[in-house]
Amino acid sequence: METVSQLLESISDVGRDTVRGGYSRPVYSTAELDLRGWFVEQAGRRGLEVETDRNGIIWAWWGAPEKGALVTGSHLDSVPGGGAFDGPLGVASALAAVDVLRQRGVQPNRSLAITVFPEEEGSRFGVACLGSRLLTGAIDPDKARNLRDADGNTFADVSRGNALDPEHFGRDEEALARIGDFVELHVEQGRGLGEEGPAIAVGSSILGHGRWKLTVSGQGNHAGTTLMQDRADPMVAAAQIILAVQKTAAAQPDARATVGRLEPIPGGTNVIASRVQLWLDVRHPEDAVTAALVEAIHGKAQKIAAFEGCSVTLTEESYSGTVHFDAALQRQLENALPGAPVLATGAGHDAGVLAGYVPSGMIFVRNPTGISHSPEEHVEDDDADAGAGALADVLEGLL
Amino acid sequence: METVSQLLESISDVGRDTVRGGYSRPVYSTAELDLRGWFVEQAGRRGLEVETDRNGIIWAWWGAPEKGALVTGSHLDSVPGGGAFDGPLGVASALAAVDVLRQRGVQPNRSLAITVFPEEEGSRFGVACLGSRLLTGAIDPDKARNLRDADGNTFADVSRGNALDPEHFGRDEEALARIGDFVELHVEQGRGLGEEGPAIAVGSSILGHGRWKLTVSGQGNHAGTTLMQDRADPMVAAAQIILAVQKTAAAQPDARATVGRLEPIPGGTNVIASRVQLWLDVRHPEDAVTAALVEAIHGKAQKIAAFEGCSVTLTEESYSGTVHFDAALQRQLENALPGAPVLATGAGHDAGVLAGYVPSGMIFVRNPTGISHSPEEHVEDDDADAGAGALADVLEGLL
Repeated sequence: METVSQLLESISDVGRDTVRGGYSRPVYSTAELDLRGWFVEQAGRRGLEVETDRNGIIWAWWGAPEKGALVTGSHLDSVPGGGAFDGPLGVASALAAVDVLRQRGVQPNRSLAITVFPEEEGSRFGVACLGSRLLTGAIDPDKARNLRDADGNTFADVSRGNALDPEHFGRDEEALARIGDFVELHVEQGRGLGEEGPAIAVGSSILGHGRWKLTVSGQGNHAGTTLMQDRADPMVAAAQIILAVQKTAAAQPDARATVGRLEPIPGGTNVIASRVQLWLDVRHPEDAVTAALVEAIHGKAQKIAAFEGCSVTLTEESYSGTVHFDAALQRQLENALPGAPVLATGAGHDAGVLAGYVPSGMIFVRNPTGISHSPEEHVEDDDADAGAGALADVLEGLL
Repeated sequence: METVSQLLESISDVGRDTVRGGYSRPVYSTAELDLRGWFVEQAGRRGLEVETDRNGIIWAWWGAPEKGALVTGSHLDSVPGGGAFDGPLGVASALAAVDVLRQRGVQPNRSLAITVFPEEEGSRFGVACLGSRLLTGAIDPDKARNLRDADGNTFADVSRGNALDPEHFGRDEEALARIGDFVELHVEQGRGLGEEGPAIAVGSSILGHGRWKLTVSGQGNHAGTTLMQDRADPMVAAAQIILAVQKTAAAQPDARATVGRLEPIPGGTNVIASRVQLWLDVRHPEDAVTAALVEAIHGKAQKIAAFEGCSVTLTEESYSGTVHFDAALQRQLENALPGAPVLATGAGHDAGVLAGYVPSGMIFVRNPTGISHSPEEHVEDDDADAGAGALADVLEGLL
């Protein structure tokens, strides 16, 4: 019987990013496909029946596929230069939990499935939790088909290359009906679990969050021949917008706003950019506050751009309102894990999307530094194994 | 006999950039190689003997290669999303000028060569005028060999793939001795030639300019779970640095400073960057002032980074001091082009590098808006043809 840390060790060479550090495992890249292959093999070793549904979600069944089953799982894709645990920890813990349940001789009263969701991070096609959004109908399949990666490939074309028919994307009533309860185990992404206390927490809610794209347009020109006073430099406007984002969020308790991605066009050293694209990530527990923050940022951006002789547009790429997990399921998780603190999280998850349709809950495993979406994200081996044990306890109570 | 505009028309489809607009013709890309092929063919049609030297510079000879020849030419590579004229105008005008001289029945007293220099823009390997720097020994061949493009390919490997032996890179005494005088025709890159006045100017000097790379390091983390007050966000520091660059240059008469290229790492929307790389282009007529500007920017960047809990390093990627063209040659150009104004330029050119070793001069052709390094760079057909005529006048006087 392998421990969670042994399972993660077996994929520790897949998708390493030698430039950024950590892992880059975008959905349907060689790295993520290798991880999917690894999961299918691990499921096979445990005698679990594997199928991939029409939205690209992998299901590994202990027992026959049936309505109202107990489902657990997470994702295998990563942000660029991410850590080893965000996603894979939940999948590996689910595999390990099945081993624990069998060792305990548990006889399930209903079937159990482990799921792997595609494009949870949205790092390739720009929409997070794309697999669970398609499954539930939370995204228009047409919008999903037309999403493009940085190389210009559509999600439809890339999916087609991975043996999926994009025409069949979208809400899947049968698959959805099979989820009686959904539990996702995930590495904690803040410092909610101190170094001394318990290693496991139960999730209560997910902060509302969204992504917006700002395009600042100015006048492309030569960096050497254009006098400072003759410029309409969108980079100078973008810099002020980044500072406005930071200031606006810092003034609002519980708000987080980030610009982590920015692309000057054309992007030459000796060229004043003609256009700068930047992406804004905003989160707050109250949806109305998130909307007000984005509106305030947009207003400031317009003033800044106008002052610099530039213009700016803002478009929403995705938005998820604040999610409260199923109260009854949360109580069952708390009962199965006495002493585990209850935490809200600022990170989005497939469990958050599913929560709008089926009873869903989450378990978090300690991350000592709270650092996440970074090579420095970390989980101690003991905590990882405790997480699989906790997941087994929870599943046993629900099976 | 083809006009300059007809010659440029024949390459107007090569290397179009559908994303940025304009042209992207980095050195040794398919586009730039197509242009080199076009030049070799055009030279052949005119009975010019073509050779490529060990630094990748193409020479097309009217008359036998000899010491002290008259040389004219420019480059065919472009910045990303550049215009149609920066580089190719000088090459096409040289071809057209040969036609004009022959039509006039000019009997040269010395040989004439047309040259095409590789990597003038530095847009692929980061060092501008790389070909002329290698020819003159202004860059260490070892440094040149190890330059890398965005995909990580070394200049040595890419050159090898283009039938050059990088071991033979470096100062080429024989080739250099063949340049008795060098004249480069180039599109004007500022608004030095008004819409009403003459279309042609004579160059006097090139502003000192250089490129520096700033790396701002902070703490990569999750955009949703990391509170604003817990962040060490290098993007927030980089934004303040961009504004410091703009402010520092604006306060110094005749200075230009630009950040046109910036890369957050890892660059995910839902990730606080761990590192931001930005490139600084600074120019001023006095080398000491340029150095002082860069030092001031470095100092401000360090304070900004420290305040944000980040750190910053600054490294020089290239620097060229202010160049004054050969006074005697400049007088000959002025005499051949009565009424042409005399202009300094803020843009770097191969003629500027060569000026440190052989008598060099420049001719500029009107660009009505002054916009350059942009798809909007423009030269009227009449002005282009007047440029070729002016180049022919100049060459005739010098042959």
